[in-house]
Amino acid sequence: MKKIAILGSTGSIGTQTLEVVENQGDIEVTALAAGSNIRLLEEQIRKFRPKIVCVFEEEKAKELKESVRDLTVRVVSGMEGLIEAAVEETSEIVVTAVVGMIGIRPTIAAMEAGKDIALANKETLVTAGHIIMPLAKKMGVRILPVDSEHSAIFQCLNGENKGSVHKILLTASGGPFRGKTREELKNVKVEDALNHPNWAMGRKITIDSSTMVNKGLEVMEAKWLFGVQMDQVQVVIQPKSIIHSMVEFEDGAVMAQMGTPDMKLPIQYALYYPERRYLKGDRLDFWSIGQINFEKPDLVNFPGLKLAYEAGCAGGTLPTVFNAANEKAVAKFLNREITYLTITDMIEGAMNGHTVKENPTVEEILDAEAAAYEYIESRW
Amino acid sequence: MKKIAILGSTGSIGTQTLEVVENQGDIEVTALAAGSNIRLLEEQIRKFRPKIVCVFEEEKAKELKESVRDLTVRVVSGMEGLIEAAVEETSEIVVTAVVGMIGIRPTIAAMEAGKDIALANKETLVTAGHIIMPLAKKMGVRILPVDSEHSAIFQCLNGENKGSVHKILLTASGGPFRGKTREELKNVKVEDALNHPNWAMGRKITIDSSTMVNKGLEVMEAKWLFGVQMDQVQVVIQPKSIIHSMVEFEDGAVMAQMGTPDMKLPIQYALYYPERRYLKGDRLDFWSIGQINFEKPDLVNFPGLKLAYEAGCAGGTLPTVFNAANEKAVAKFLNREITYLTITDMIEGAMNGHTVKENPTVEEILDAEAAAYEYIESRW
Repeated sequence: MKKIAILGSTGSIGTQTLEVVENQGDIEVTALAAGSNIRLLEEQIRKFRPKIVCVFEEEKAKELKESVRDLTVRVVSGMEGLIEAAVEETSEIVVTAVVGMIGIRPTIAAMEAGKDIALANKETLVTAGHIIMPLAKKMGVRILPVDSEHSAIFQCLNGENKGSVHKILLTASGGPFRGKTREELKNVKVEDALNHPNWAMGRKITIDSSTMVNKGLEVMEAKWLFGVQMDQVQVVIQPKSIIHSMVEFEDGAVMAQMGTPDMKLPIQYALYYPERRYLKGDRLDFWSIGQINFEKPDLVNFPGLKLAYEAGCAGGTLPTVFNAANEKAVAKFLNREITYLTITDMIEGAMNGHTVKENPTVEEILDAEAAAYEYIESRW
Repeated sequence: MKKIAILGSTGSIGTQTLEVVENQGDIEVTALAAGSNIRLLEEQIRKFRPKIVCVFEEEKAKELKESVRDLTVRVVSGMEGLIEAAVEETSEIVVTAVVGMIGIRPTIAAMEAGKDIALANKETLVTAGHIIMPLAKKMGVRILPVDSEHSAIFQCLNGENKGSVHKILLTASGGPFRGKTREELKNVKVEDALNHPNWAMGRKITIDSSTMVNKGLEVMEAKWLFGVQMDQVQVVIQPKSIIHSMVEFEDGAVMAQMGTPDMKLPIQYALYYPERRYLKGDRLDFWSIGQINFEKPDLVNFPGLKLAYEAGCAGGTLPTVFNAANEKAVAKFLNREITYLTITDMIEGAMNGHTVKENPTVEEILDAEAAAYEYIESRW
């Protein structure tokens, strides 16, 4: 029995990870962690019987503790509890599917405890890639990408020498507003932006996908995960999301991974890598697909991607500022406090107002995040 | 220095193999073999200095012997000579790029001498796959495909467990007559059929590509090379030949290999596998490709592919008859003796007139070939 911990078990990736666990039947869930959705968490506990669960909100943790008194599970809370869940002694892989900067410390703790990471938390590599990747090397643990694009790239690199990679071709659907001008995007409503053409995802990531900020974060992640430079990562718009990403090698060969839009595939691949197992679901039918279209991304009307390249090239604390400003801005947009176009204006403003610190510690990363939040609160 | 022998060095694959050798600069050519083009062969000898060369035609061999008297190279001829070149002591890889059944015996001899095979001769696996694949296993030698499609599949299988292959998606351009009806194909001239949209190849294979017979042969080759059943190989029409082939795995993931239409890529990949090296040439530019289209093959107007599936499913000597009848028919068409549509009529006639022998020996394969030739000569 493979033993895994899932941090963020009530979210989109967390619940799909548990579906994979249930379908395969040979994985033991050692630890679960969630923010506040204790109703769902309790169901998960009763079904998968973890040894420890963390509820980030202390009040909710107390509530849950009461309702699972009949079980032997240990209930913890807060960052301390999250780290405790991350380092649960018996687990081999920790699925880090929490959203936001909160994922960094538990990820580092799990790595230091010698566990492989199935990484679904974007912020970890975007803000702390310079800490995470050397640590993985030092500890001899694997970072297994769970994101569809990074899993595709990871699959393309299977059996290949990383030194022969020429560039990474990161595909992007272009989101629901592909082809629109800034003028046309002026009056975008929350409902419009939440309507992604191909993937069913959480609210925040769906907005990020529509602004291309999500693709920008993925470019930065790819840089760290695969040890390339920002200019070796080329974004290719491919509206149907059939190709999940590609790698071009020194000899000109391009390897691509394709599939239907089902996150269970990259999740399962990460959990069983390098083994592939049967996965129930639709298959691509090339006799009826018709065509796959490619386009160049539009950096003028979607400045989020351009800003991400700037942040990734500058490095240091700037990717943290890019990410934090976006997080705050999206929250405000979802809360109908700002217009759609103000999201990227806020990111640009926060980046311009920031003095980059090279090679930041986790403390300094969190300080940069706080400063970006504050900047945005003070200006908008 | 890697040491290679090239059988069929004056043909399309042979000359491009020597281009790769020249570009890389760290491969020694130990043996060369050609049919009759001794002008080009002499140039190759003076440049690459092989230890032994075979000219299949005895008269031409004598002529060459005279003209290279100043060198220490040994000149041999006939099937005996071809086998001698194939087993040249020091070579590690034998590139089998001769056209036709003539390739089988030297390939077997090279394998028995412990050499890896860079396979560009279609007939070897189509007619004798049941002998070649177990022999490769027994001798512990590798069969490295040089054909663009099979190399693509081979690259997709890199680092994968072959047991997790669900099916192989063999792409096909559809040739110059894609979309045409039999009625429209009635008056096809040799010149029309020789005009392939994407690849520059020899005359025979270009005709085979236009009739889809080539794709049929490739399906049979794929069956043997990758240990799958005929119905696990699906042909997908993709007119631009950007995707060179794909593999669908048990989990639904599809891996694809793409590239520009340059045979030097699969040649170089076979010679240096698993290493990839820089290869000069154009690169795919996904920002300007526009689109990739997919279609279902048309088995009604292009019965060559349907007949190949029948031959491959029946096995035994039937693939040999399919291949031999096609070879004869294409020669007659190129010689303007028969119409374009008669090519597949001849194949069908020969297959219908044949009684399948299971598990044939090389002798029996050659007998089946002779019988198919004879059948066609007697009927048309």
